[in-house]
Amino acid sequence: MSAPVGIVVDVLRATSTVAQCLAAGYRRVLCCGEVDDARAIAAAEGDAVLGGERLAVKIPGFDFGNSPREFAGTPAAGTLVLTTTNGTRLLLAAAARCERVLVGSLLNLDAVTRACAGAEEVAILCAGLHGELALDDAYCAGRIAAALGGDPADSARAGIRLAQSFPSAEEALGAGQSARNLRRAGLEQDIAWCARESVLDVAPRFARMVGPAAELVTGAPA
Amino acid sequence: MSAPVGIVVDVLRATSTVAQCLAAGYRRVLCCGEVDDARAIAAAEGDAVLGGERLAVKIPGFDFGNSPREFAGTPAAGTLVLTTTNGTRLLLAAAARCERVLVGSLLNLDAVTRACAGAEEVAILCAGLHGELALDDAYCAGRIAAALGGDPADSARAGIRLAQSFPSAEEALGAGQSARNLRRAGLEQDIAWCARESVLDVAPRFARMVGPAAELVTGAPA
Repeated sequence: MSAPVGIVVDVLRATSTVAQCLAAGYRRVLCCGEVDDARAIAAAEGDAVLGGERLAVKIPGFDFGNSPREFAGTPAAGTLVLTTTNGTRLLLAAAARCERVLVGSLLNLDAVTRACAGAEEVAILCAGLHGELALDDAYCAGRIAAALGGDPADSARAGIRLAQSFPSAEEALGAGQSARNLRRAGLEQDIAWCARESVLDVAPRFARMVGPAAELVTGAPA
Repeated sequence: MSAPVGIVVDVLRATSTVAQCLAAGYRRVLCCGEVDDARAIAAAEGDAVLGGERLAVKIPGFDFGNSPREFAGTPAAGTLVLTTTNGTRLLLAAAARCERVLVGSLLNLDAVTRACAGAEEVAILCAGLHGELALDDAYCAGRIAAALGGDPADSARAGIRLAQSFPSAEEALGAGQSARNLRRAGLEQDIAWCARESVLDVAPRFARMVGPAAELVTGAPA
């Protein structure tokens, strides 16, 4: 998975949430894997709110869950500290192996594709579920691969064909295990929300590590 | 990938070759990862011939390459010692994590599916290319998953949809990087050969380790 550019995809819901949050005006998202780390970072950083889930459900005492819908209004702070499991680990792995790491979702499909202009090679990295392929991520990766064009590798070809096999993004995102988990948690509205395409003009990127957290921002590198 | 039954797929060409070889009457295939190991095992076992490839091409001094076409006639010995890279590693990993390991290809699609009858959970494990998804393996896995039925996981659902997107097995096997590698080596006939469906009534299974090699046989466990 080493490549000049890596696009991390966890479409239900971490990367959709990051895109939504930065598009709404948050200055940055600090993504970390552990709940205790998230609390400590939020306390240390000031002007930060806490978001995150375990088994799709909002963590007790946190300001927000991991639903992009919660971040569509006015920012509640400058920084969102977000704790997810699959997405964060993948972000860190990507940061170690790619020169640039971008955050992809359907919400920012056009923007993240445009941000890859001129890149010789782009790897699309799917978070999946506990190390297994998630249908929603594979679909989203296929959509991004199709938008990028070029000479796709076998995995991208497979993703493109998979994406073409669905009549709509909402149907694709609704077909997998992630959707089942969301429905079980009463969060099925997130599926339709995250299935909307290119409604956010942001291409979040990994900027640096802040302790154990990956800092995600928009805009050109400093 | 831990499951009661694991089906290993390296359709172009290791698992097709194993199925072909055992269907032709070889008593067993000893699959190993290193060329030197293969030579040593063949010398020690007696009544053994050597098969294998590196970068699709037959290894110098070996009796056979890794083309199933070479094994369609009368067995040249009781044992084939076969060295492949991706397929063998996957076999060993599967043997460590699954109670039963079967060898799957299109050539033995029906037989390998039938051999899973009654299994509560089946994992289909794709060899791929250097750790990346290979389109031909994903296609074959999708065909096996569709034949197995049941309640497929996301990855199996994706494979089934991918498989349905191709008009024929030959087109699917011909569309990926493995096929490109075979054409470059002048071995394009193997693509059509391996794309034939359910022409061999064998379900090879992992029996035991013989030194560093995985022993594959047909028939019921002893």
